[in-house]
Amino acid sequence: MINKLIKRIIELQNPTCVGLDTDFNYLPDEMREGVTNFKKAASAIYEFNKNIIDAVYVIVPSVKVQIAYYEKYGVDGLKAYKNTIDYARKKGLIVIADCKRNDIGSTASCYSTAYLGKTELGDKSLKAFPADMLTVNGYLGFDGIKPFVEDAKASKKAIFVLVKTSNPSSGELQNLKLENGKYIYEQMGELVKEWGKDSVGKYGYSRVGAVVGATHPKEAERLRKLLPHTFFLIPGYGAQGGSAEMLKVCFDKHGLGGVVNSSRGIICAYKNEKYAGLNYAAAARAACVDMQKDLLETIGKMGK
Amino acid sequence: MINKLIKRIIELQNPTCVGLDTDFNYLPDEMREGVTNFKKAASAIYEFNKNIIDAVYVIVPSVKVQIAYYEKYGVDGLKAYKNTIDYARKKGLIVIADCKRNDIGSTASCYSTAYLGKTELGDKSLKAFPADMLTVNGYLGFDGIKPFVEDAKASKKAIFVLVKTSNPSSGELQNLKLENGKYIYEQMGELVKEWGKDSVGKYGYSRVGAVVGATHPKEAERLRKLLPHTFFLIPGYGAQGGSAEMLKVCFDKHGLGGVVNSSRGIICAYKNEKYAGLNYAAAARAACVDMQKDLLETIGKMGK
Repeated sequence: MINKLIKRIIELQNPTCVGLDTDFNYLPDEMREGVTNFKKAASAIYEFNKNIIDAVYVIVPSVKVQIAYYEKYGVDGLKAYKNTIDYARKKGLIVIADCKRNDIGSTASCYSTAYLGKTELGDKSLKAFPADMLTVNGYLGFDGIKPFVEDAKASKKAIFVLVKTSNPSSGELQNLKLENGKYIYEQMGELVKEWGKDSVGKYGYSRVGAVVGATHPKEAERLRKLLPHTFFLIPGYGAQGGSAEMLKVCFDKHGLGGVVNSSRGIICAYKNEKYAGLNYAAAARAACVDMQKDLLETIGKMGK
Repeated sequence: MINKLIKRIIELQNPTCVGLDTDFNYLPDEMREGVTNFKKAASAIYEFNKNIIDAVYVIVPSVKVQIAYYEKYGVDGLKAYKNTIDYARKKGLIVIADCKRNDIGSTASCYSTAYLGKTELGDKSLKAFPADMLTVNGYLGFDGIKPFVEDAKASKKAIFVLVKTSNPSSGELQNLKLENGKYIYEQMGELVKEWGKDSVGKYGYSRVGAVVGATHPKEAERLRKLLPHTFFLIPGYGAQGGSAEMLKVCFDKHGLGGVVNSSRGIICAYKNEKYAGLNYAAAARAACVDMQKDLLETIGKMGK
């Protein structure tokens, strides 16, 4: 799936990921009017997502769907989550389930089944929330990551492990120095490298990727050098303050190596003066076009 | 809620938490027969949980519901999750949602709303998965933890941050030594102490607790000394190999300071020869009685 994502990035000359972190409050007034229960809120969120997807799927390779924004609307919210994943995949988008799941082995295996694998019931194999890629947190070490790595291998999917996150206090733990001279984020990076070393594909990247925030260019640069075969999921562009200039260190000499997520910058573009007069779907598309231009100008042409 | 949990532990002389990590495959054959879709599987899981709860709620203070086992059964599984939480709380149990959620501030805030807070829709305040306590992962640092701390304060609930987990490879990252001489798990412990310092209640414990595995007594002992006001959620007893002897270091001189979780050891007790002839609910109850006896004998009387 990492190969498929890279292939699509090259075809479209666009390493953008649209973040469908769709809070109900991001929707236009007319879609929110009179909504006072989870079922209606979830339907409105799904409709919004569908229209965004229809507007962008021919120009971007991937979407990232942040599950927290759906859990907030209860069981109905999770139905909208599932429907959004299914619809995006039907449109040919590569779907990253952003869930940052983590637990001990037996439990991690359940999460992995839910997002990357299949649940067996009698003679049936069913899929709970079938995404193409999943974000995970590696604080528990390898036995909590192994089920995801194995399912990703079996189903030709991929995972991204949190290494250096985009938020302001990410350094509180991640930037502490170890006795061995490495920072914690580097150590986590090296674990990710080890966990993925057997799955490096034709473009030179493994199916065990890393989350590396656009907002921390110094750390991103170190990580790119340390992890030449690790594909990066790069959040933090736009609303969080990351720029193309800051994140270009994540890319190799062929303009490959990462996918850049923007959420509010795209799905809330209709609130931005720059896109005044456009509806939310058209504004999202325009913001994607601008983001592609920005990334392409800064990173350069993608592909060997 | 930490005060309420401690009060209940003293009343019952029992620091047990029943882990409802209810995999469909744990159910007796007759409950699984002919089930080939998520809806029926989820109904059977909920029925199983209800019967376990009915059998144990008068003798244990709390249950921990591990969400991975429900996500595996899709949207229907999450309905069973919600129903299980609601039923357990109706029976007076203190419910720990074991979700290990983590993300950047804006997103963490959505998770927090889902489990500890309220979702506002128009003039309505709705609750998605209303638990009493939630487990979280602190790898992202304080801005990812702050929304949980604030909601826990506003709603008189509590959180448990992963510090030293019970799984075999927890040491891969957590037991690395920092330049400052501390282990990563100790550093995380000190962050937890800091995050909870303003909320120490009448029994001497804060509403920001820590997850400390029963399987690592040396680390648990260090953490108890380092964090005298941090309440521990202690997984790993029973099926994972932790014993009362190993975990007694987590408790203070009044026999307080933690709640001990057992999942498979209780909900799958009916498969254990020791409880032969009992149905799953009766076996779960018998296993709880045995666990209480074991803990009480080893830790001693609970309360000042």
